[in-house]
Amino acid sequence: MSVATKIGVLGGGQLGQMLGLSAIPLGIECTFFDPDPEAPARVAGKHFCAAWNDRDALARFAQSVDAITFEFENVPRESLAFLEGIRPVRPSLRSLETTCDRIREKEFLRDAGVPVQPFAAVSPDAPASLELALATVGPHGVLKTRTLGYDGKGQRVVHSAEELARGWQELGSAPCIYEAFVPFDREVSVVATRGLDGTTAFYSVVENLHTKGVLFRSLAPARLSDQLTQDALRHARSVLDGLGHVGTLALELFVADGTLIANEIAPRVHNSGHWTLRGARTSQFENHMRAVAGLPLGDTGMPEHAAMVNLIGGTPSTAEVLALPGVSLQLYGKTPRPGRKVAHLHVVGATQDELLARVARAEALARRVNRLA
Amino acid sequence: MSVATKIGVLGGGQLGQMLGLSAIPLGIECTFFDPDPEAPARVAGKHFCAAWNDRDALARFAQSVDAITFEFENVPRESLAFLEGIRPVRPSLRSLETTCDRIREKEFLRDAGVPVQPFAAVSPDAPASLELALATVGPHGVLKTRTLGYDGKGQRVVHSAEELARGWQELGSAPCIYEAFVPFDREVSVVATRGLDGTTAFYSVVENLHTKGVLFRSLAPARLSDQLTQDALRHARSVLDGLGHVGTLALELFVADGTLIANEIAPRVHNSGHWTLRGARTSQFENHMRAVAGLPLGDTGMPEHAAMVNLIGGTPSTAEVLALPGVSLQLYGKTPRPGRKVAHLHVVGATQDELLARVARAEALARRVNRLA
Repeated sequence: MSVATKIGVLGGGQLGQMLGLSAIPLGIECTFFDPDPEAPARVAGKHFCAAWNDRDALARFAQSVDAITFEFENVPRESLAFLEGIRPVRPSLRSLETTCDRIREKEFLRDAGVPVQPFAAVSPDAPASLELALATVGPHGVLKTRTLGYDGKGQRVVHSAEELARGWQELGSAPCIYEAFVPFDREVSVVATRGLDGTTAFYSVVENLHTKGVLFRSLAPARLSDQLTQDALRHARSVLDGLGHVGTLALELFVADGTLIANEIAPRVHNSGHWTLRGARTSQFENHMRAVAGLPLGDTGMPEHAAMVNLIGGTPSTAEVLALPGVSLQLYGKTPRPGRKVAHLHVVGATQDELLARVARAEALARRVNRLA
Repeated sequence: MSVATKIGVLGGGQLGQMLGLSAIPLGIECTFFDPDPEAPARVAGKHFCAAWNDRDALARFAQSVDAITFEFENVPRESLAFLEGIRPVRPSLRSLETTCDRIREKEFLRDAGVPVQPFAAVSPDAPASLELALATVGPHGVLKTRTLGYDGKGQRVVHSAEELARGWQELGSAPCIYEAFVPFDREVSVVATRGLDGTTAFYSVVENLHTKGVLFRSLAPARLSDQLTQDALRHARSVLDGLGHVGTLALELFVADGTLIANEIAPRVHNSGHWTLRGARTSQFENHMRAVAGLPLGDTGMPEHAAMVNLIGGTPSTAEVLALPGVSLQLYGKTPRPGRKVAHLHVVGATQDELLARVARAEALARRVNRLA
């Protein structure tokens, strides 16, 4: 199989930017399809600026590259299917379709042997589904739209049948999933890559801290027992192989009562893997590009402890960031707005204690400037 | 002092490319001045394509940026002086003028307390200078043009008065330096950065192997005694401070008979520092950009053993490179020609033994494809 050297990327946000920057040393040229003229990824490759449903533009984009991938999972399904008729799309529609619908995602996880909490579909087409869901899951749960939710958007935590009914109204009575609330101690994720030849590479399990539903900080490796670490990696392997995924993905898991429960799959490079840019021997971005190009995957090992802290809605001065020991900066070139991820901090330390002391300073700086939506 | 966020770079080769790629996450936009429309750095910033002596273009280039640096030391002196009248040039002309003339460079090193071999100027304006040089240095030496030499070009090793006279003829009777031949055991270099505020940061001393005068492989850290390691770092500090340098530079040294003798200074990021892209916590490129921008310098420590192997005149298939454990690739996007540096391999290892075993495989691959001039 020939190696792709021109890769089209659907979406030109910061994930695209980091994919593009990691592709250049591999001799891979990226073209980013993004309707935003200010797409951050434009500094890291060519920018194909057109609307998601512009067939002519999509066709020209596809014909200009060897293979196509995405950094944004809400690409219209029809556009993807159209592109797939012209050039290979990696990962395939299967990964996207399985994970973009929360019901299908949970069913896939359950069928792949990955533990999930009780869940049920809530549908505007089935009037009794709210009652059935309540009976299956119980009154304490989380109601989420089946599609298009991210960073805690399109969700309601409910504690009673009344809150469930009201929550559904607030979500526009859209098709939803109702899941049992998991009283988790900790949230972890596994970022992993599967090559075009089916080989797999796993990054260290990461421990994540969210603020208002948005990732704030990731620590690698997670403070987790060996048993749970092994379980998490095994589950990630089941997901990669079950999807026949090509590229990087993230599996988010709750640690609850000494066991793991899958939360969701992101079928792409993921914010909880950004630490790999400075903390792992090969980043999640480079490994994604290698997989999509059909190249061997790189070493995912980490020589030191590492962490990532998000800057959301604001940034401190660059000089102030860089004066912190062990801290470096990844700016995305985006105009700050409340709730918008505009940069992240990399933190490394020779020991976990050193890392945690440095992370505390990085978090304090981030908390001072962050403006959530 | 305000931080520069738009930086002009004179030269758009692979050094410029790596500078530009390292600048993006810092929010620094690079503009590369280079007459070559195919300048490799164009993928990592804006490209200002004009001739070195085009005053109008130089003025517009300078006015479009906050500060100016270079990746190429043979920029015409007048052009640099002209630019310096418009925007700060970092490092200053002092660094460039001291190091672009081999006589001035050796005098500077000697005056800074850095050991140098016996040397003498050979000048077409002083008819007896060849005899005087022979008397000072002896019959076994190296004759080099005072300016414009690199990668072993413009040099002759001589063993007698006759060879010296013939060598000078072959070099067009240009102004030359005649240096005593140093029977060195090993060549090492120190790459280091000095910030705008005078703070300094030193990378591990590196051990270099050349083939036909061109760097082939660098190992970090060098296999060197603690004493010589300390000496090398001290000499690098003398050079940085003596020049009042701002940015990264490299000091090349011979290890001869248990002591160090300075060979030359490269007043810019250097091939023997490329390993820092994957092997150090902050690369030589990022630290150069930080210095030029007026930002704090980053940690130069290395969590693992690291090496770099040059690909010159040819490249193996990317898949073959990436299949080697611990090896990653940095392609420059240049068309291969004999003698042209087109890429390098990064090698890392948890121990020196692991590194050396991996380097041996990387070197074998490079030797198979390299085509020297």
